Amino acid sequence: MARNITPRSKDYPQWYIDVIKAAELADYSPVKGCMVIRPNGYALWEAIQADLDLRFKETGHVNAYFPVLIPASFLNKEAQHIEGFAMECAVVTHSGLKKGDKGLEPKGELEEPLIVRPTSETIIGHMMAQWIKSYRDLPMLLNQWANVMRWEMRTRLFLRTAEFLWQEGHTAHETAEEAQRETLQMLDVYADFARGFLAIPVIKGRKTDSEKFPGADATYCIEALMQDNKALQAGTSHNLGQNFSKAFDIQFQGRDQSLHHAYTTSWGVSTRLIGALIMTHSDDEGLILPPRMAPTVGVVIPIYKTDEERERVLAFARTLLVGLCGEERVAAAEKRDAGREYMSVFIDDKARQKIVVDLRNERPGEKHFHWEQRGVPFRFEIGPRDVDGGAFVLKSRVEGTKTPTPVADATAAWLEGHIARVQTLLLERAEARQNAATVEATTYDELKARLADRSGFVRCWFKPDREVEAKIKEETKGTVRAIPFDQPGGSGTCIVSGQETSEQVLFSVAY
Amino acid sequence: MARNITPRSKDYPQWYIDVIKAAELADYSPVKGCMVIRPNGYALWEAIQADLDLRFKETGHVNAYFPVLIPASFLNKEAQHIEGFAMECAVVTHSGLKKGDKGLEPKGELEEPLIVRPTSETIIGHMMAQWIKSYRDLPMLLNQWANVMRWEMRTRLFLRTAEFLWQEGHTAHETAEEAQRETLQMLDVYADFARGFLAIPVIKGRKTDSEKFPGADATYCIEALMQDNKALQAGTSHNLGQNFSKAFDIQFQGRDQSLHHAYTTSWGVSTRLIGALIMTHSDDEGLILPPRMAPTVGVVIPIYKTDEERERVLAFARTLLVGLCGEERVAAAEKRDAGREYMSVFIDDKARQKIVVDLRNERPGEKHFHWEQRGVPFRFEIGPRDVDGGAFVLKSRVEGTKTPTPVADATAAWLEGHIARVQTLLLERAEARQNAATVEATTYDELKARLADRSGFVRCWFKPDREVEAKIKEETKGTVRAIPFDQPGGSGTCIVSGQETSEQVLFSVAY
Repeated sequence: MARNITPRSKDYPQWYIDVIKAAELADYSPVKGCMVIRPNGYALWEAIQADLDLRFKETGHVNAYFPVLIPASFLNKEAQHIEGFAMECAVVTHSGLKKGDKGLEPKGELEEPLIVRPTSETIIGHMMAQWIKSYRDLPMLLNQWANVMRWEMRTRLFLRTAEFLWQEGHTAHETAEEAQRETLQMLDVYADFARGFLAIPVIKGRKTDSEKFPGADATYCIEALMQDNKALQAGTSHNLGQNFSKAFDIQFQGRDQSLHHAYTTSWGVSTRLIGALIMTHSDDEGLILPPRMAPTVGVVIPIYKTDEERERVLAFARTLLVGLCGEERVAAAEKRDAGREYMSVFIDDKARQKIVVDLRNERPGEKHFHWEQRGVPFRFEIGPRDVDGGAFVLKSRVEGTKTPTPVADATAAWLEGHIARVQTLLLERAEARQNAATVEATTYDELKARLADRSGFVRCWFKPDREVEAKIKEETKGTVRAIPFDQPGGSGTCIVSGQETSEQVLFSVAY
Repeated sequence: MARNITPRSKDYPQWYIDVIKAAELADYSPVKGCMVIRPNGYALWEAIQADLDLRFKETGHVNAYFPVLIPASFLNKEAQHIEGFAMECAVVTHSGLKKGDKGLEPKGELEEPLIVRPTSETIIGHMMAQWIKSYRDLPMLLNQWANVMRWEMRTRLFLRTAEFLWQEGHTAHETAEEAQRETLQMLDVYADFARGFLAIPVIKGRKTDSEKFPGADATYCIEALMQDNKALQAGTSHNLGQNFSKAFDIQFQGRDQSLHHAYTTSWGVSTRLIGALIMTHSDDEGLILPPRMAPTVGVVIPIYKTDEERERVLAFARTLLVGLCGEERVAAAEKRDAGREYMSVFIDDKARQKIVVDLRNERPGEKHFHWEQRGVPFRFEIGPRDVDGGAFVLKSRVEGTKTPTPVADATAAWLEGHIARVQTLLLERAEARQNAATVEATTYDELKARLADRSGFVRCWFKPDREVEAKIKEETKGTVRAIPFDQPGGSGTCIVSGQETSEQVLFSVAY
């Protein structure tokens, strides 16, 4: 099979698309700007959901669901405050279709247009105002997993599409301190999740005023650095203060018997994380997935020529699978996938991760290629001579190593050991890359040069300022990605204004 | 607190709404016909999703995601065949909003209207046609969890709303036999799930031609009987034959090297199941949930007057919780919920089911009432005298019994025993009710009388016929709910036509 992935050195954006296509993660759809998330891609989102959702619940949050359509009037309040307001979104104006002369035509014009939610902030605020009466109803800790839509014409799979999937947390609190604690707690949840589950090292920090969500008192973010040294905002957590509760009348009777506006927060991550995952780990051979989250952890490649060899190799493969997953799961897979080209043996009770046996009538080389492109961390190769020796060959996608391994060694704990090792390795590799691509600038010229040559994160003393930042963006395409929590202490001279400042920032060109 | 649930005997539909409101499952939203699913209600959907999704994966299905918007032209083909075609759905005609004289106005008219998916059948068919090339790409076993929308003006929470949540399975196969096997397999999955997880007894059967999905060769269903003896279709599985693959050009190169149209199926259940759950088990006190699926399995009610009593009672409650859930989960809950009115201790690793400690400053009677309305299966009451005796009182919501229980007995296995017992009890109770409400009719007059007095399922020999069924529906509001798989054998005389027929059907008035 011909090489079908453009090397990163040749064309990074094309490489990105090629990796997605080769791994069958997503496709463009017949609806402009909308993507179809294929099973291999959706399984990544399911993994992300499962892990994050547990973290949300362990921190006391509950899920709810709000309507996909929002009255246009809900946005009016925002529109009144925003000069030149224009919102790109899908607008519903009719309640049906009827046959017309030229095909189907809209019928039943609505009194008020509805929009497909670009976020649920307004409708959740509206409902919270009804549900919250007293301080005893607080904190209200909601989350929603949903599809949202923003009309985008220049799209890139996972990174920017008209429709995408996300979660949006919305919480209300009695005090400003509690809201701030929540905002930072969720940032920590995101950072721990990104590092621990996706093996993506992230920088925690605060946005400058010009980069923050306009409705927030403060926006916090986790920023990751992609292989091409462009930054990607992987998650945000907003402290909305009383801005939203005042706009939506979210009031409660306090301990002092009088009415107060609640303090609210919101926080979210989206299918964009899949883009970050791809651009953090993958290589010119295709996708690489951290083994802790990979839907297919391993693939068994039986190698044989004759029927007799086939029988021996498959019997040996079965022994391996039973060692890794247990007799019950292997038997269930054999029943389910009888006569099919792939057999999937789940390794956990939730059927989230699996080992696949590739029974296709293809050459081993083609199979290796197939699974490398799909980012499967481990390959178990079994030929007739391996059977004779009582050992299979373990191929590690990330390390490139081939290790003959006695089949008796292959237990669930053995597999877990390899998962843990490679997971750590990927994180360390990404961290080393990020560290190497974090440079300092002591003058504006230096900053410009480092942004122009795509050095990565450029750290410098800088006093945030809306106009200055706009000018820098125009001149360099770079923006302040974060005022990182991790500061050297002391103070320095702003590289633009020359004023004394106590904070360094990270500049980068961003996705 | 005043009684706030209308008795079933007085006004069944009002009782249904009252139960939902009292348990805080859902609310109407500011968007006409759309509901907000509140955390207590959404947790039911999460339980349903978790259990069903595992069953789907164990039968070899994978999840994917398709766009929420569908080009109107995708429905044209259907419209051409359907006389007086009119489709009630949300129609997107513009790509944004701008400030106008009277608030926000739509801008950017689209060349072709898009509709919010009422189902994804057409767009999935379109994509399958691109993905499927050869018999080796089959079977393709897809499922999608999504929101869908049909413009409904007469709505009822969970039973009929403009937007609802569902799953839609869409599969493609090489042969007609395989497609039929899949169709029936998924019906079995639904039936096992309804019985085993929701404790809802269902009748499996086939729809008559007049009741089946127009695009299907055959539609199979599970039908449940509500407490008011109206039937509710709880799930459907369609064998679409080659109808859809011909409309959407889903073709594959067969083993014989020539092109064939695939055989497809589709199957779905929705948030309607929550309506079925409510109307199968609940009573005049409020919601009743089967303990296997209840998000809150139990609630601890500490009873005390003095601070000294409070301390002793809470220490005893902690011992109970550690016995049921383990020290680690109790410690995590204490940390998370410190200072709050409720403490939630999860009983499983996925944080799906929990035991809540009600620490509110309320009278025990109010707390009992509160949790009864919310359908929590078990209440653990602990007063100072209970502490002295080393035992708590177990109150069973379904059985109404109060059982003093030594705290040393309360282990995870002990709780599981109670869960299993009550789960079986609820299923048996619902089965007994359904059996008692399944009657026979040997003449059309008898059928009319049994439908008029809402006897439940009326079983009779009947030869399905579109015109006859339309007439019966007009005269009685009753429809053929299913031609049940469970047949007496032999043959009988159709109660309308007098013709000999080999099948009995079940009539009922339906939701």
